[in-house]
Amino acid sequence: GWAKIDTGRPARTGTAEAVYAAGKTPEQVVGALAALREAHPGRVAVATRCDDACVAAVRGAFGDEVLVEAGVCAVGAFPEAESGLLAVVCAGTSDLPVAREAEIVARANGIDTRLIADVGVAGLHRLLDKIGELREAACVIVVAGMDGALPSVVAGLVAAPVVAVPTSVGYGAAFGGLAPLLTMLNSCSPGVTVVNIDNGFGAAVAASRILGVKADRS
Amino acid sequence: GWAKIDTGRPARTGTAEAVYAAGKTPEQVVGALAALREAHPGRVAVATRCDDACVAAVRGAFGDEVLVEAGVCAVGAFPEAESGLLAVVCAGTSDLPVAREAEIVARANGIDTRLIADVGVAGLHRLLDKIGELREAACVIVVAGMDGALPSVVAGLVAAPVVAVPTSVGYGAAFGGLAPLLTMLNSCSPGVTVVNIDNGFGAAVAASRILGVKADRS
Amino acid sequence: GWAKIDTGRPARTGTAEAVYAAGKTPEQVVGALAALREAHPGRVAVATRCDDACVAAVRGAFGDEVLVEAGVCAVGAFPEAESGLLAVVCAGTSDLPVAREAEIVARANGIDTRLIADVGVAGLHRLLDKIGELREAACVIVVAGMDGALPSVVAGLVAAPVVAVPTSVGYGAAFGGLAPLLTMLNSCSPGVTVVNIDNGFGAAVAASRILGVKADRS
Amino acid sequence: GWAKIDTGRPARTGTAEAVYAAGKTPEQVVGALAALREAHPGRVAVATRCDDACVAAVRGAFGDEVLVEAGVCAVGAFPEAESGLLAVVCAGTSDLPVAREAEIVARANGIDTRLIADVGVAGLHRLLDKIGELREAACVIVVAGMDGALPSVVAGLVAAPVVAVPTSVGYGAAFGGLAPLLTMLNSCSPGVTVVNIDNGFGAAVAASRILGVKADRS
Amino acid sequence: GWAKIDTGRPARTGTAEAVYAAGKTPEQVVGALAALREAHPGRVAVATRCDDACVAAVRGAFGDEVLVEAGVCAVGAFPEAESGLLAVVCAGTSDLPVAREAEIVARANGIDTRLIADVGVAGLHRLLDKIGELREAACVIVVAGMDGALPSVVAGLVAAPVVAVPTSVGYGAAFGGLAPLLTMLNSCSPGVTVVNIDNGFGAAVAASRILGVKADRS
Amino acid sequence: GWAKIDTGRPARTGTAEAVYAAGKTPEQVVGALAALREAHPGRVAVATRCDDACVAAVRGAFGDEVLVEAGVCAVGAFPEAESGLLAVVCAGTSDLPVAREAEIVARANGIDTRLIADVGVAGLHRLLDKIGELREAACVIVVAGMDGALPSVVAGLVAAPVVAVPTSVGYGAAFGGLAPLLTMLNSCSPGVTVVNIDNGFGAAVAASRILGVKADRS
Amino acid sequence: GWAKIDTGRPARTGTAEAVYAAGKTPEQVVGALAALREAHPGRVAVATRCDDACVAAVRGAFGDEVLVEAGVCAVGAFPEAESGLLAVVCAGTSDLPVAREAEIVARANGIDTRLIADVGVAGLHRLLDKIGELREAACVIVVAGMDGALPSVVAGLVAAPVVAVPTSVGYGAAFGGLAPLLTMLNSCSPGVTVVNIDNGFGAAVAASRILGVKADRS
Amino acid sequence: GWAKIDTGRPARTGTAEAVYAAGKTPEQVVGALAALREAHPGRVAVATRCDDACVAAVRGAFGDEVLVEAGVCAVGAFPEAESGLLAVVCAGTSDLPVAREAEIVARANGIDTRLIADVGVAGLHRLLDKIGELREAACVIVVAGMDGALPSVVAGLVAAPVVAVPTSVGYGAAFGGLAPLLTMLNSCSPGVTVVNIDNGFGAAVAASRILGVKADRS
Ligand SMILES: Nc1ncnc2c1ncn2[C@@H]1O[C@H](COP(=O)(O)O)[C@@H](O)[C@H]1O
Ligand SMILES: Nc1ncnc2c1ncn2[C@@H]1O[C@H](COP(=O)(O)O)[C@@H](O)[C@H]1O
Ligand SMILES: Nc1ncnc2c1ncn2[C@@H]1O[C@H](COP(=O)(O)O)[C@@H](O)[C@H]1O
Ligand SMILES: Nc1ncnc2c1ncn2[C@@H]1O[C@H](COP(=O)(O)O)[C@@H](O)[C@H]1O
Ligand SMILES: [Mg+2]
Ligand SMILES: [Mg+2]
Ligand SMILES: [Mg+2]
Ligand SMILES: [Mg+2]
Ligand SMILES: [Mg+2]
Ligand SMILES: [Mg+2]
Ligand SMILES: [Mg+2]
Ligand SMILES: [Mg+2]
Repeated sequence: GWAKIDTGRPARTGTAEAVYAAGKTPEQVVGALAALREAHPGRVAVATRCDDACVAAVRGAFGDEVLVEAGVCAVGAFPEAESGLLAVVCAGTSDLPVAREAEIVARANGIDTRLIADVGVAGLHRLLDKIGELREAACVIVVAGMDGALPSVVAGLVAAPVVAVPTSVGYGAAFGGLAPLLTMLNSCSPGVTVVNIDNGFGAAVAASRILGVKADRS
Repeated sequence: GWAKIDTGRPARTGTAEAVYAAGKTPEQVVGALAALREAHPGRVAVATRCDDACVAAVRGAFGDEVLVEAGVCAVGAFPEAESGLLAVVCAGTSDLPVAREAEIVARANGIDTRLIADVGVAGLHRLLDKIGELREAACVIVVAGMDGALPSVVAGLVAAPVVAVPTSVGYGAAFGGLAPLLTMLNSCSPGVTVVNIDNGFGAAVAASRILGVKADRS
Repeated sequence: GWAKIDTGRPARTGTAEAVYAAGKTPEQVVGALAALREAHPGRVAVATRCDDACVAAVRGAFGDEVLVEAGVCAVGAFPEAESGLLAVVCAGTSDLPVAREAEIVARANGIDTRLIADVGVAGLHRLLDKIGELREAACVIVVAGMDGALPSVVAGLVAAPVVAVPTSVGYGAAFGGLAPLLTMLNSCSPGVTVVNIDNGFGAAVAASRILGVKADRS
Repeated sequence: GWAKIDTGRPARTGTAEAVYAAGKTPEQVVGALAALREAHPGRVAVATRCDDACVAAVRGAFGDEVLVEAGVCAVGAFPEAESGLLAVVCAGTSDLPVAREAEIVARANGIDTRLIADVGVAGLHRLLDKIGELREAACVIVVAGMDGALPSVVAGLVAAPVVAVPTSVGYGAAFGGLAPLLTMLNSCSPGVTVVNIDNGFGAAVAASRILGVKADRS
Repeated sequence: GWAKIDTGRPARTGTAEAVYAAGKTPEQVVGALAALREAHPGRVAVATRCDDACVAAVRGAFGDEVLVEAGVCAVGAFPEAESGLLAVVCAGTSDLPVAREAEIVARANGIDTRLIADVGVAGLHRLLDKIGELREAACVIVVAGMDGALPSVVAGLVAAPVVAVPTSVGYGAAFGGLAPLLTMLNSCSPGVTVVNIDNGFGAAVAASRILGVKADRS
Repeated sequence: GWAKIDTGRPARTGTAEAVYAAGKTPEQVVGALAALREAHPGRVAVATRCDDACVAAVRGAFGDEVLVEAGVCAVGAFPEAESGLLAVVCAGTSDLPVAREAEIVARANGIDTRLIADVGVAGLHRLLDKIGELREAACVIVVAGMDGALPSVVAGLVAAPVVAVPTSVGYGAAFGGLAPLLTMLNSCSPGVTVVNIDNGFGAAVAASRILGVKADRS
Repeated sequence: GWAKIDTGRPARTGTAEAVYAAGKTPEQVVGALAALREAHPGRVAVATRCDDACVAAVRGAFGDEVLVEAGVCAVGAFPEAESGLLAVVCAGTSDLPVAREAEIVARANGIDTRLIADVGVAGLHRLLDKIGELREAACVIVVAGMDGALPSVVAGLVAAPVVAVPTSVGYGAAFGGLAPLLTMLNSCSPGVTVVNIDNGFGAAVAASRILGVKADRS
Repeated sequence: GWAKIDTGRPARTGTAEAVYAAGKTPEQVVGALAALREAHPGRVAVATRCDDACVAAVRGAFGDEVLVEAGVCAVGAFPEAESGLLAVVCAGTSDLPVAREAEIVARANGIDTRLIADVGVAGLHRLLDKIGELREAACVIVVAGMDGALPSVVAGLVAAPVVAVPTSVGYGAAFGGLAPLLTMLNSCSPGVTVVNIDNGFGAAVAASRILGVKADRS
């Protein structure tokens, strides 16, 4: 009654529905994951923003099939990576949880990922040392809080699409991520696109669309 | 003295610098376009957000080589389209100038574009009639003001990357485009990425990165 | 001393005062409900936004007469439904508590309601499947968080009045419901009206006014 | 190419599309009105937010058929009023243009209207003198800027649905109508619904839905 | 070291410093109150916004001399009331704590106060019944959350100065009291002045200035 | 029809209605002033925020009876000052128009005023030199833009009521007067009350209430 | 009457008062400059934010003594530079007017300045080429609009104090300079300090304080 | 993997990286401090915004070497003070934690500091009594919440650079420190520069740059 799983979504959009666990009961999350597993046995079913009670319920229901990382519960065997390389870059250590949400969701979609962490612009050489690695990527997700300056610098150095993720890391005039969000929307490096604050999930799905994940898994 | 054209940008990022004419004198805009023409004779030099005085100065300097559309001055012969198809979709007739800025910039970058106009969600059948056309596109730019609802609906129907452009069309609580900007950042259809309000230019460059425009033109 | 129950409200406005429990002590809530029961024995007395302590106190005072749902305590026998049909539509499962607040308040006012849940615009067919049911309604309440796009789509499909309720479901640039609130105020489908974020109660009272609930119960 | 008039809208929603003239050329407005006249010869074609150049073009194209009021151009013979009474109430004389936009749009939809002006809460007796008239209305639109307090007072006095329209009248901390918008969304009189700042048009369409305007005119 | 009590304040401004307990340790609050008692033995020493630990420490230090109400600790014997009458009016029961903060601070300053509670504009007769009492007051403090409409109505009915206090009562688009704050700043009844959200303390001191409390107590 | 002058206002509130000219036609302003002159022949009729066309129309209608200052048109002979002294203090020369609006409105209400200009806190001695004069005032209006710091300093030096008026003087992060508005609402000197940005008129009416202007003029 | 020039300011703070011309009449600006010239014959008198009428009046009054640049009128002979070097760095050509306001004010205070323009982070090599020059500076002012990312990068490369100036260059979600302002306040490079949007003047005075300009000129 | 300590930062910028503990695990904080200790044995390693668990872990790892104050863990022997004097001034007692964060970070950088507390502008004499001490400082940090008025007053009295730190002390329209932040950005005393809300750390690093801390410690 309370849920209508959109089982046609992979066919239409390339990726399956994911469960947004915030504001749902553990029972609702488990129920939705079960429905996704049944509809798409060849795919990983994913719930994001799970709290401890929710994680426990999911583990209770699916046992060994569950991988948990950064609040994401992923149920089912991960596919072989079959796409171009996705680089996930983050500015500071505190941005890691958002970067990891992006990584696990991308891998659940069959994307090959590489994490490049703690290369914020306060010490530019750290990023410049990684230019070679960055240029191997077919798509780059850049995660940053506070000043959110990193995507502008990255997008000036690579030709691949750059998806920027502002984080809520910071305080005061960071206003919960508003500061890096505005920075990224106003990037002086053209071609940067932006997703919601802390939305590693959405960045991963955007990357999956860009890298051309196919809809033909069951 | 006052300008350092970044002539290495095509090699690094795939597209050349464009001139942001707002806040510049007509002389500065003409000077910058001339420098771009000289550095990249095989590319179209582009200035955005040109007012009437600026357009006149550019036409005076470059004559027949100039194409003007939606405040964009494009100088030089347009390349053959060589990429996958880019669909530029807009919600209402008032959003057309932003859609056209995206179109002309994309075409200057060698992108094949198709415009699908006035298909806002208030009359859904107009969009549903275009699903076939939309699914032919390798990338979709969706332009909308007011409620900004269109990208969510489009992204639920196609597997291609969706770049959303909020516009300043509207009044009152549209707050100059803030309303559709927030709508798009919070899209319930995952994988939508967003650029600045009225930033057709940026959406076109993002699409150019996504469609893999090559850096090997002179 | 501290409360003046407005016992003339049903006669003037068609519906009785409800107790807003937030910021009140359990004793104050119980006292206000008792005064409402005494003034209007033929009506259901309602308190909204009750926390656990408040619910316990209300149950302690009124026992079996109490129905509790989504933070609403409703005291007294529910009337027969006597109005046209009210459809309560919600975009996602996480919006259910707000939808349920609207439903129970409407039913306490003698409104016939139908819930249509989890029909967000990311998978349009779910809503299109319900058009027939929707068109039977004499009034529609649409509840949505995040992008808040659903009321625009619904209002383009039905002729009945559409009351939109933004919810605080979402994070980051949803800004506690500001994003869907602005979306709904800027709906490109004319005739959508909007109530406060998470205000299922107010939407239900508006629907009661629209559906012409009569003031003639004791 | 640039416009797709939604000619099925009356059948689906009870009222026809209106042209939002802001951001359109006079030619586009005239073209859209002509298309509406052709599609719905039995209805009044309406364009809102027309500036002087636009009004002149519309008068040039449609001559005596045009009625102009508060930036609205209405083309075609007005229908007989056939609905319950709509009261349009405004707080101050400066709010009149918004009230008049609501009135003319409602009358174009066949609604019987009565204007009650300059009854703001600073001098309560002015409103109290009108209670009798107000209670005759089957729907009330309340228009107010600055503190936006009037809808709360009106909704405490009548049982009919109250649609509140905040206006941009005021300065400083009125923030272009944000102040009365928030006032109205937080009304302590339950059942008030709200439309966008200065949106007399939208309030009139909401009233048309509430009063049950029929879709059966050609 | 960490505090410099401003012992000249009564002589300069008519009222003594009060301790703002938020962000201070209980020891700091007790120390500041002791210093105030010593400097001004003939006055009540006041600390506002005390939490439970702070109240306990103050009671421990000053015993029977302490009166606690709405987070205010008042130490010392209250003076005889010697001023004109101050009416403290509040819109809803949930606004009572702020009204009580104003009352106790005013009484500590020697002001004669009268509380008129739960007379919000949703049921106007409640206020109209009190006009006689209101007109006896030489100064009126009006406390309201949500729509904050009450001060506009009161100021249209009395000639005394009206000090408006917005409260954080409400949710969603009340934005923690921003909505009633803006309402009050934009009052259509001239002569309303406004203090910070929930600042019953400041309203009471303003009333003390207006009513002419003298600086000649020790 | 379009206006209902509230002629009972002096009897109820001590001061007459004033005409808010913004958003009104010159004819509407002249008509309202004429109605006020007729209702209250012994009072000055006042219109605020008049532009040049409006001033010309008022002069045309009332000739020598009109005094114009800072956008205010005052019609009729000014009364003898009969109240305690009102000091109007402003921080910078650019704040003068707002200070003058306050002065002329206060004098029209029979208040004795003294202007103390250009005493901002960047050069404290300028204010300290005026302490004697300030302490003679029975009420103080303090007008300041940019940082809005002056009312906090003044209120720490005098016992009279302090009404603070933020101005829109400044740029950038002054946000049209939001910065000084917030400063004043958060004054660390208790007892400061605040009116809307640039609202010299409202401050003058508040001072008139405080100083006890009588309602017994015809 | 309307102005009190603070002639002690150089002795107290090291730099003289400057005239903020916005909101002042040309006569007021000329009068204030004359007073400054008289009080401090050995200093340059400065007015900022002068429009054309103001510039004309100043030139009329002071003739050849006037230097005009970026809205600044500087009257009097410029002193020999006597301090450490100030580098003024700007991100784009459109930021030049703000950079020039900073430069001319600094030079009027006897500061040695060097302009480094158009070195935004989209093409990092432009800045890296200037590291040597940057490290020669004893203080650095960094001017940037849009994403405001440049100060974070500069502050990671030099040990000198970095004063960041956000500009209003940009559109949409730049919100008039709010975006780069927030970026700079949240810089991940510690030690960046920030002045108001477009406030080249204030940055120059801060640099004058930092570089130790002496107060001993007449 | 997850961290790249920027060990070249002292050589480039004069001060070492500090660990921002918020959003990091205790293990990550200890690991980063250990790396900093190893890279720079002659410097104090600093972590800011440590909660209790983090402090315990740091004490466990470094024992007696740790100094904890205001959420800062400082590991290693403090250097002799070798710079000009830094005055840290705060407005109220509740602002002390931010002032202390600034003090300890400055001392860790070898700065000589003096704290001047509780000298807010509500009682000006407290500050005026300290002018002599203030003028001895080569740099002044001013910390204030609520109205944030203190830096404007201080900067009008001294010639040294003034770094202003807004705090989150206050409530309601203080909006978590936004009010004093805007006040400080709009200071009418030129030359005030501003850091993020509650950012005592950043103010101390700015002061270190201003006072010329050398990079030559190991
Ligand atoms: N309290 C603080 N406020 C602002 N920035 C800080 C603070 N503490 C440390 N930082 C800086 O923030 C950055 C944190 O990056 P990371 O530790 O990699 O997440 C470092 O460059 C620090 O210098
Ligand atoms: N004043 C108005 N305010 C809000 N919506 C309007 C207004 N006038 C017309 N509309 C609606 O806005 C939409 C405009 O779409 P378009 O004309 O295609 O740009 C139509 O669906 C109209 O029904
Ligand atoms: N959930 C709610 N949201 C908005 N208003 C409410 C809600 N519940 C009750 N109210 C109204 O809020 C007012 C509360 O006033 P009081 O109970 O006196 O504080 C009453 O007029 C109720 O009708
Ligand atoms: N509830 C309150 N709201 C606003 N200001 C207050 C409040 N309580 C005390 N104050 C004032 O805030 C200032 C606090 O300064 P301090 O105690 O030094 O931090 C004092 O001047 C008090 O008069
Ligand atoms: Mg790091
Ligand atoms: Mg259209
Ligand atoms: Mg769902
Ligand atoms: Mg009126
Ligand atoms: Mg009540
Ligand atoms: Mg001055
Ligand atoms: Mg450039
Ligand atoms: Mg204190």
